[in-house]
Amino acid sequence: MYAIGIDLGGTSIKGALVERGQGLVHQHTLDTESDEGPSHVLDRITTVVRELRSHAPSVSVEGVGIGAPGSIGWTRATVRRPPNFPGWMDINVRDEIQRRLGEQLPVLVENDANAAALGSAFYGAGRPYDDFIMITLGTGVGGAIIYKDRIFRGSTGGAGEIGHMTIDYEGPFARSGVAGAIEAYLGQRFLSRHARYRLMTRDDSVIHNMAQEDLLGITPKMLYDAACSGDEGAREVLAWAGHKLGCVLGSCVNLLDIRTIVVGGGLSAAGDYILDATRSAIVRFVTPGLRENLLVIQETLGNEVGMLGAARLIFEYLDEQPPDSEDPVDRSRPSA
Amino acid sequence: MYAIGIDLGGTSIKGALVERGQGLVHQHTLDTESDEGPSHVLDRITTVVRELRSHAPSVSVEGVGIGAPGSIGWTRATVRRPPNFPGWMDINVRDEIQRRLGEQLPVLVENDANAAALGSAFYGAGRPYDDFIMITLGTGVGGAIIYKDRIFRGSTGGAGEIGHMTIDYEGPFARSGVAGAIEAYLGQRFLSRHARYRLMTRDDSVIHNMAQEDLLGITPKMLYDAACSGDEGAREVLAWAGHKLGCVLGSCVNLLDIRTIVVGGGLSAAGDYILDATRSAIVRFVTPGLRENLLVIQETLGNEVGMLGAARLIFEYLDEQPPDSEDPVDRSRPSA
Repeated sequence: MYAIGIDLGGTSIKGALVERGQGLVHQHTLDTESDEGPSHVLDRITTVVRELRSHAPSVSVEGVGIGAPGSIGWTRATVRRPPNFPGWMDINVRDEIQRRLGEQLPVLVENDANAAALGSAFYGAGRPYDDFIMITLGTGVGGAIIYKDRIFRGSTGGAGEIGHMTIDYEGPFARSGVAGAIEAYLGQRFLSRHARYRLMTRDDSVIHNMAQEDLLGITPKMLYDAACSGDEGAREVLAWAGHKLGCVLGSCVNLLDIRTIVVGGGLSAAGDYILDATRSAIVRFVTPGLRENLLVIQETLGNEVGMLGAARLIFEYLDEQPPDSEDPVDRSRPSA
Repeated sequence: MYAIGIDLGGTSIKGALVERGQGLVHQHTLDTESDEGPSHVLDRITTVVRELRSHAPSVSVEGVGIGAPGSIGWTRATVRRPPNFPGWMDINVRDEIQRRLGEQLPVLVENDANAAALGSAFYGAGRPYDDFIMITLGTGVGGAIIYKDRIFRGSTGGAGEIGHMTIDYEGPFARSGVAGAIEAYLGQRFLSRHARYRLMTRDDSVIHNMAQEDLLGITPKMLYDAACSGDEGAREVLAWAGHKLGCVLGSCVNLLDIRTIVVGGGLSAAGDYILDATRSAIVRFVTPGLRENLLVIQETLGNEVGMLGAARLIFEYLDEQPPDSEDPVDRSRPSA
């Protein structure tokens, strides 16, 4: 059984043809060109879908799942105000893609962090666990809850906003206006700035040979490379970040009693340079009754989990259709 | 349909005979006498059950639900290490009560905060809402999640430990050893101490006429009474507490996308002296996409929700039994 999974980002539209048991079969990526406006972006998503189908001429593609930033409606059709998509208010992506394709292929949209978590649950590091918390360390900090192998969506589909949880009510402000939100420590721009000031006077740090003048433009990759080469300063920065992550994850464990944490996103590549500190901190921020069996692991599939999870939306959707049911997403589902 | 609901506390065993549609029909309370050891406490619970049944001679009582402190096992039979119960390790309360009663009446145990939330969901302020977060401000700070009208239990039954979530990773320590846990601000001993030092030099505060010498022994009731009489100092203390509560509830909303909060427990009697500040703060600690329709309300049923929710466990349990099923709690369920 085949479906297409799309990971819609501010920079690129990553698409994959996914076979249910096998995983990723073929990939196609286009620049998002979000500055050109929503209609252009929807055209480009459609182009990626068409391209991927042309690589599967002999199989039926059962639908298109899309992981997107912004607020996703409860029925998984609409995307509201995704950050870094100028002019995009509230768009029914399902209808727009179906119209462009000229057919009623099932299209489902989900929050990108939720899609990544679902991908991890069925194809990635989350496979062995029925319940886990996923945290994605990228430009921002995303989160999602997998409970009994399903996305926990909350009342309106917006659950899992771990990036906006506070660890210090008098702390620095993130872009959301929340004081001490974990994103104000681990979001890429915040972490870069922290590293810059922390290392500026550390003349012995190899970061001075990697970043721009005055230590501008420090990336997670630079910190990781420097840490691997033995740089004390870079290791301190990553451990500092890992400690903050442990604080917020402790709060998540207290609230959810879900004790497995899967960490993904670009910064997670720094692995144990971050996660050792996370593991030390999380225990100290969890109530004694919930401290056993805490597990913090790294997602190893990288960006692929987003596409895989998006495709998984379609497989789940098909599983839930009773035979001969009236189909709420697509009243005339074709065999495609 | 009748069940017995027990709220097992460190000080008293509160029991009620509950009719499903009508609610509380009869109450009976005994001192817990937890110093006498677990066996004595179990005897006294049994005495309360017998007493309540003697008040319902003509109706069949379908089972006994118990809300208890400590860790509750996933099957809702065992209670592990409840605080303030000396000598209590891990006890199968279901078996112990059934043995004392001499019959296989269904007995179910649930965490006391979860039981209170369930009581609120079906008999209290939570009735209009499918999803809500309950926070109980008593000696400690308890929490629970109601999602789709059910208790969200997490992986092992321990979800909802809001009292141990941090709002300041460098903050004061609560008894759980978690820095900045909300209980370190709002737990009764912590709030009393805060009020004591805050008001010690405020000679104009009426608290000086209420508390012991040197402002020892300030209770939530004193603060509320003082606030009602117009005392500025007491109002500041309650607003300070409400603000902290808003910080942690903001984190809960971000993670769960559940936007209705029901506040219960003794301190909640202070009502808007606390909750106005909570409402102001929570908005500032929630990401913009989840700020609409936030609702913070007070549970008005008081201690009764614990007993009502405990009884509700039995009604739900009976609803779930397929006709003629083998009964996992009670293989020979009697009609009495």
